[in-house]
Amino acid sequence: MSIDPATAPTSARRSKLREALRDRGLDALLVTDLLNIRYLTGFTGSNAALLVSAADETDAEDHTVISTDGRYLVQVAEQVPDLRAEIARASGRKLLELALASGIGKLGFESHVVTVDQHAVWSDAADGIVFVRTPHIVEELREVKDESEIELLRRACAVADRALADLVQRGGLRPGRTEREVGRELESLMFDHGADGISFETIVAAGANSAIPHHRPTGAVLQSGDFVKLDFGAQVGGYHSDMTRTYVLERAASWQRDLYDLVARAQAAGCAALAPGVDVGSVDSSARAVIDDAGYGDLFLHGLGHGVGLEIHEAPGIGKLGTGTLLRGAVVTVEPGVYLSGRGGVRIEDTLVVREQEPELLTLTSKDLAIV
Amino acid sequence: MSIDPATAPTSARRSKLREALRDRGLDALLVTDLLNIRYLTGFTGSNAALLVSAADETDAEDHTVISTDGRYLVQVAEQVPDLRAEIARASGRKLLELALASGIGKLGFESHVVTVDQHAVWSDAADGIVFVRTPHIVEELREVKDESEIELLRRACAVADRALADLVQRGGLRPGRTEREVGRELESLMFDHGADGISFETIVAAGANSAIPHHRPTGAVLQSGDFVKLDFGAQVGGYHSDMTRTYVLERAASWQRDLYDLVARAQAAGCAALAPGVDVGSVDSSARAVIDDAGYGDLFLHGLGHGVGLEIHEAPGIGKLGTGTLLRGAVVTVEPGVYLSGRGGVRIEDTLVVREQEPELLTLTSKDLAIV
Repeated sequence: MSIDPATAPTSARRSKLREALRDRGLDALLVTDLLNIRYLTGFTGSNAALLVSAADETDAEDHTVISTDGRYLVQVAEQVPDLRAEIARASGRKLLELALASGIGKLGFESHVVTVDQHAVWSDAADGIVFVRTPHIVEELREVKDESEIELLRRACAVADRALADLVQRGGLRPGRTEREVGRELESLMFDHGADGISFETIVAAGANSAIPHHRPTGAVLQSGDFVKLDFGAQVGGYHSDMTRTYVLERAASWQRDLYDLVARAQAAGCAALAPGVDVGSVDSSARAVIDDAGYGDLFLHGLGHGVGLEIHEAPGIGKLGTGTLLRGAVVTVEPGVYLSGRGGVRIEDTLVVREQEPELLTLTSKDLAIV
Repeated sequence: MSIDPATAPTSARRSKLREALRDRGLDALLVTDLLNIRYLTGFTGSNAALLVSAADETDAEDHTVISTDGRYLVQVAEQVPDLRAEIARASGRKLLELALASGIGKLGFESHVVTVDQHAVWSDAADGIVFVRTPHIVEELREVKDESEIELLRRACAVADRALADLVQRGGLRPGRTEREVGRELESLMFDHGADGISFETIVAAGANSAIPHHRPTGAVLQSGDFVKLDFGAQVGGYHSDMTRTYVLERAASWQRDLYDLVARAQAAGCAALAPGVDVGSVDSSARAVIDDAGYGDLFLHGLGHGVGLEIHEAPGIGKLGTGTLLRGAVVTVEPGVYLSGRGGVRIEDTLVVREQEPELLTLTSKDLAIV
C-alpha cells in the first residue's frame, strides 16, 4: 500500500518547507534523503532527488522538479502527477544543472546525509551555486503529523494489535516454544493482517532474557513462570507502529506482579504527561519518578520514548537529556522498563498522538497483567 | 551465528589494510562504516569506530583501537579480544582524541560514507590532523574473499538450496497460491535451515509478472502454465547468498522451453568465462552474446552480475560498462535474464567463487528446466 498521491497533502508539505527555506534566505533545497522525498512527493522508488524551489507560491510548484532513473519512468508519473519529472542516471547532478540554468544562488542541502564525496562532486559540477548546510530541515516538518499520516499510523498499530491478539488466542505463547518461533509467528500474523513489512526485527525475550532491553530472539525455550516480553511493529504505507507488551506464562510470582504493576504505573504517568508545549524532559521524569520512588531508578536503563513515523525512531527523543517541547500532532512512544539482571524485566510501550486535550492512544491492546 | 574471533583472520585483514595505508602515505585510517569494522575486527554492534594505525607491524596492533558505547562493553571484549577497546558516547570523536595524542598527522577517512556534517565536527575537533579522502579502501580489500568468508558464503548458499528443495518437494509451488504466500514460505524455510536473516525481500514473480526484473510479491495467484521466478537468499554469519531459479507450473509451452534454454545457455557461458584476470566486460559479453545472437539482446535489461559478501551488492560489478578484471577469490553472481513484456521472463542466477582453475559453484540447485 502506498499513500494515494491524489489525496496526500504533499503539496501542503512543500508549501511549509518553502516557508522554512525563505526564512533562511535560501533560493531552493536539494533533497536527496529518500524518506524525505517520499514525504514531500509520495514517490517510493529507490533512487531520486528533488529540487524544491523557494519561489513565491504561484511559481514555486512549476520550478519544483523530481528526478529519478529510467526504471521508475511509469512509477514517478503515477505517484507524483503534480510535479515535473526528469529522468536521468545521476538525479542530483541533473537537478543541479536545472538549478544553475534557473539562476539559483543559495541552495540548501541535507548535510546530515550527503557524503563528503557526493558534496565534492556537486561543488565541482555547480560552480556559482553557494551550497548551504541545512540539516534536518525536512525532518523537523515531519515531527508534526497530518491526519493522513496519523491514519496510516493508526492502521499500522491496528495490524499489530490484531496480530498479537491472534497469537495469544491461538496459544502461541506457551511453554516449550522458542523465542524465535514466537517471533516468526507474530511477524507472519502481521502480514496476514495487512502489514507491508515489519517495523524492525521482533524482540521476543523470555525468562532471564527479558532483562535484556533489546534482546534478539534465540532458540531459548519458553518456560512456565517466565516473563515473555514482545516488542514489535508493523509498517503500513511506509509508517511504523511500535508496541511492547510483557506477559507471564501460566503463573505469576508476587515479585513479577509487583514489578509489572510498577512499570504499568510509570507508563500511565508518562502517557498522562503528554501534551502540547510540555518539555520532553519533564515527560520522561513523570514516568521515571514512579520508578525512582520505588527504588528501581538505576534499572530503567533507557529513555522513555521517541517519535515514530516514516522511521521507527525520529524526533522528538523523550529522555533525561532531551530538550524542546512536545508539538501538537507529534506521534510518540512511551515505554518505561525495569530490568532485573538474571531474573527478568518488564517493558510496556504504547504509541500515542499528542493532542490538544488528552493524547490519542493508537496501540489498543490491554495493559492489564495477562497470565497466558 | 557470528564469525569466531579466535579463528577469523581479522588480524591478517588489518595487515593488508596497513600496506594500503602506507602506500598512500597515511599514518592511520578512521573506519566508521559498520560492515568494514565487522570485516576488520569481527565486531557486530550497531555503533562503533575503528582507528587503524599504519605503523610498522610490531607496533601497529598496539595503536589500533576500537571504540563503541556502553551497551557493547561485554560484546566488544568477547568479539574483539585482540584490540584495545575504548567505551565512549561519541566513538569517532574519542578516536580522534587518541589520534591527536599519538601524533598522527595524515588520517584517511571513508569519504564515501562520512557525511558533510560529521566531517565538519571532526575537523573542528581535531585541529592539526590532515583529513585525507580515502573512499572504498576497505571495500577494495573485501572484494577478494578469504577461505573463512567463502565457507560462510557456502553455508548461506546451502541454506537457500535446502529451503528451495523443501518448498518444491512439499508442493509449495502450485496453482492457486499467491506470490506473497510462496515468498513468505520460502523465507520461513530459510530460517528453518539456519539462516540468521534473509539477504533481501524475496522476489516471487508469476506469469506476466515474471517479465518484471525486480518484482515485489503481490496477491497475484499462480496459474497452470505460468513461469514462476524466485530470486532470494539467506544470510549466515553476515554473508549473503543470492540465487534465482525460474520454474514452469504443470505444463510448459514451446516458447517457454525455448526461452528457458536460451537463458540457461547464456548463464552457462557467463559462468564458464569466470577466471582470474579476465575483464569484467568480457564476462558480461560472453553471456550477452548468446542472447544477442538469438535476437533478444534488447530484452536482457541489466548487468550480468555483481560481487556478494557482507553486502548483497558489492564489487565487482559485471556489466557492459564494467571496468577492471576479476580477482582470484572474488565471489560473484552470474544472472542473465530475458523478459517478454506481458508474457513472462526467465532469469537464472548462481553465486560462484572465482578460482584459478574453474569457478566453484556455491548455489547447487539444478538449472534444468523444472515443471512443477
